[in-house]
Amino acid sequence: MDTPPPLLFALDLTGTFVFGLNGALTALRATHLDVVGVVTLGMMTALGGGVIRDILIGAIPPATFLYWPYFTLALAGALIAFVLNRPLARFEMSLTTLDAVGLSVFAVIGASKAVAAGLGAGPAVALGVITAVGGGTIRDLMVGQVPTVLRSELYAIPALVAAAITVAALGTDTYGLPAAMGAVTACFVIRMLGVRYQLNAPRPPGQSRGTPEPGM
Amino acid sequence: MDTPPPLLFALDLTGTFVFGLNGALTALRATHLDVVGVVTLGMMTALGGGVIRDILIGAIPPATFLYWPYFTLALAGALIAFVLNRPLARFEMSLTTLDAVGLSVFAVIGASKAVAAGLGAGPAVALGVITAVGGGTIRDLMVGQVPTVLRSELYAIPALVAAAITVAALGTDTYGLPAAMGAVTACFVIRMLGVRYQLNAPRPPGQSRGTPEPGM
Amino acid sequence: MDTPPPLLFALDLTGTFVFGLNGALTALRATHLDVVGVVTLGMMTALGGGVIRDILIGAIPPATFLYWPYFTLALAGALIAFVLNRPLARFEMSLTTLDAVGLSVFAVIGASKAVAAGLGAGPAVALGVITAVGGGTIRDLMVGQVPTVLRSELYAIPALVAAAITVAALGTDTYGLPAAMGAVTACFVIRMLGVRYQLNAPRPPGQSRGTPEPGM
Repeated sequence: MDTPPPLLFALDLTGTFVFGLNGALTALRATHLDVVGVVTLGMMTALGGGVIRDILIGAIPPATFLYWPYFTLALAGALIAFVLNRPLARFEMSLTTLDAVGLSVFAVIGASKAVAAGLGAGPAVALGVITAVGGGTIRDLMVGQVPTVLRSELYAIPALVAAAITVAALGTDTYGLPAAMGAVTACFVIRMLGVRYQLNAPRPPGQSRGTPEPGM
Repeated sequence: MDTPPPLLFALDLTGTFVFGLNGALTALRATHLDVVGVVTLGMMTALGGGVIRDILIGAIPPATFLYWPYFTLALAGALIAFVLNRPLARFEMSLTTLDAVGLSVFAVIGASKAVAAGLGAGPAVALGVITAVGGGTIRDLMVGQVPTVLRSELYAIPALVAAAITVAALGTDTYGLPAAMGAVTACFVIRMLGVRYQLNAPRPPGQSRGTPEPGM
Repeated sequence: MDTPPPLLFALDLTGTFVFGLNGALTALRATHLDVVGVVTLGMMTALGGGVIRDILIGAIPPATFLYWPYFTLALAGALIAFVLNRPLARFEMSLTTLDAVGLSVFAVIGASKAVAAGLGAGPAVALGVITAVGGGTIRDLMVGQVPTVLRSELYAIPALVAAAITVAALGTDTYGLPAAMGAVTACFVIRMLGVRYQLNAPRPPGQSRGTPEPGM
């Protein structure tokens, strides 16, 4: 098995690092956990989406277990979060922003890897979304919260947009740094606009919006 | 990879559709979710059991990612549930009935696919049960409930009966539409009788039956 | 596929049996479940870690579905726990002790199997830990608790020590009954010392230890 193309690899490592940070910060906020719990949750958040994707496309053992940078960056992100928890706490939006970065890059990388594995356009988009939301979903389940993908302002939709742009670019042979960064940016902007203006996808007919869920 | 036999395929698609409906209706009842959350939970319920089974028997990528009808029917079921939530709410038993239909057909299809993949009788029965209860278990975990398989009136047992009938019929070369429908019917009837008469499997010695669990 | 070496097989079956006992006892303590719920949770606890490991190393179908002793022992452990719940309840530490035994043997077997599958030292250690904590993590999620691996006194660290000893012994060609039992013992002793003296890994800077978590 040869190494992935540099662009994908760089995006993947970026997502791994920021999800490691994010997962560990979530652990620090959610409950009183020791360093092992914090690091474990950081690594599950960072590596979970990619591991699920690799199993589903048949890339077994998953890349995480073949290339040391994944483990190392997830661990580094989690440890940095553990040590710098207090200074980082001043940045109120940090958790959400880091999550949006991870969501964006993992949607692009997940869709790319699925196309490279020979899947069709629809499944490749689905795998982009699964890669993007998988780690965060594991994180939420582990700390006893209803996963963000089920309850949050525009969470799956921006990942879907990024994955669809990626698959379209690959299909029309226009994929490269600009297309990838465009897809990442589109996802990030839609997600952050959703958070900023509390946009939500349409709710069921006749159901009021109600108060925000606890824990959001 | 060629397409599955028509009977299995039809059963599989039926289960996918009703579990899509069921998962989405559960999402609508359980929490205030937007359309993406409702559809996501519907698709996880509909596709989760089959994806777990395909990974375990080595059919990777899972059928869900190879044949578009799975995704489409799961999505259709979830969207119909989202739109028709209010009219459907009048049918009090609808959630349980849909779940029983999905349970029944997925137990038969799961066991058949496991036998076709070369597994022995015992493991094939186990995979039938896993296929049947897998999607519902994911659904329950996602909305923070103890999974039905652990706490409910005769949930795993009817799936076990249907899977065992299927494996026996395949082993004696008497499998076909009658055997498959017999297995589906047996599972459905046992499950619904359990719900109707609140039958339960034996409880631990010396432990009173107590009040019904919250959320059941 | 040939059978595993006797030592690994014996350790694996031991872990399967004690995790079956442990998972079922947890089910009996946590909620009012019937016999199917108790047995299901016992089997998930016993078989979950190994199934995850086998998927990750590409040993599909997982060993659980190929060798009947796994299912049988997990089932036997769970049924024994169901019947002997009351007498066993007198031994206050039984749940924790059984869990520590399962943790220890599964860390060793998981690391061994990963090395045998051709993985590097780091990933093999990680897979040892995943095998060890996987079943218990599924058990905790199923009954709605934050997994032990995230919140408990020295849970992942002893598994890491046992997996590291195993990988080191295999790498230096000194693996055998003494090395395996040494690794198992090291994990068990560290884990039980952690429980006895309520040792914890370091907590975040500036965060007090606080009261014990509910449910621990």
